[in-house]
Amino acid sequence: MDMEKVNSMDFGEFVDVFGNVIERCPLIAAAVWSQRPFSGLEDLEKHFSAFIDALPQSGQEGILRCHPDLAGRELQRGTLTAESQREQSSAGLTSLGAEERLQLAELNARYRARFGFPFVLAARLCDRDAVLRELARRLQRPPAQELRTALGEVKKIGRLRLADLLGGDPARL
Amino acid sequence: MDMEKVNSMDFGEFVDVFGNVIERCPLIAAAVWSQRPFSGLEDLEKHFSAFIDALPQSGQEGILRCHPDLAGRELQRGTLTAESQREQSSAGLTSLGAEERLQLAELNARYRARFGFPFVLAARLCDRDAVLRELARRLQRPPAQELRTALGEVKKIGRLRLADLLGGDPARL
Repeated sequence: MDMEKVNSMDFGEFVDVFGNVIERCPLIAAAVWSQRPFSGLEDLEKHFSAFIDALPQSGQEGILRCHPDLAGRELQRGTLTAESQREQSSAGLTSLGAEERLQLAELNARYRARFGFPFVLAARLCDRDAVLRELARRLQRPPAQELRTALGEVKKIGRLRLADLLGGDPARL
Repeated sequence: MDMEKVNSMDFGEFVDVFGNVIERCPLIAAAVWSQRPFSGLEDLEKHFSAFIDALPQSGQEGILRCHPDLAGRELQRGTLTAESQREQSSAGLTSLGAEERLQLAELNARYRARFGFPFVLAARLCDRDAVLRELARRLQRPPAQELRTALGEVKKIGRLRLADLLGGDPARL
């Protein structure tokens, strides 16, 4: 998809295409549409990031709370978004053994209780061992630092989803 | 549902219950959860409103862009949220004649082209004649004034949805 096409979209088309760049937050794509025209993928990405950065802390935490647990209830129930399903699958999280699943569920619950949002990670860039290791590591960190890290992961996920949609090479972003 | 129950919800339960108080913006309910405990329905409503008011203009327009047209494509396709479906139905918008539907579609398109967001109205408080009259009237207004009016309607819709969920009397809000 080229930028000329993106820049010609009305808000309905734009939200249909980019509404899940930030998981379950079509509001953000719908806000970013106000900033058109876009010069390219990086420019588009910059506007998604800037919107997130400008939110009050409760809004930033709100974004995180719209994300599913990794290998959690929604994966079991089949109610993940298509993007999340693909990402969790590519990290091997859809084929965990019972013990690994239990271990992850326990760490996820501790993380949620400690920070008030779920553990968010750009799963596509990880394998299952890295997911468990990262979760155990980040669980120890101070809340303010962890909020920044988690929002950084939201942006990484968004960048990869944008690259998928626009046919760019994520390694070059 | 009493407030003690609401205040005991973790963020997942809270977003499950209140995620569509603002149409297709679970991010807002997820952000409002940060403000618990809530003293009652009015307090809860106040936090939803405050979050909307604190957004940059692009974010406020983004909220509006997550709303469906009244008697539009999504109603035809059956892809409205349950709440929208009920509200549009109670205003008689699900049983329009072909001519009324065409007239509404044409006014909706002019409104979207003029303001960059769809016409939003607390349909449950209207009948179909009032919807058409309001749409024709608001189409004439200056954009800054119309943005304020439209956000006021978003808040009215939210108040009615909250009252439904909490079993309050919307006339007393």
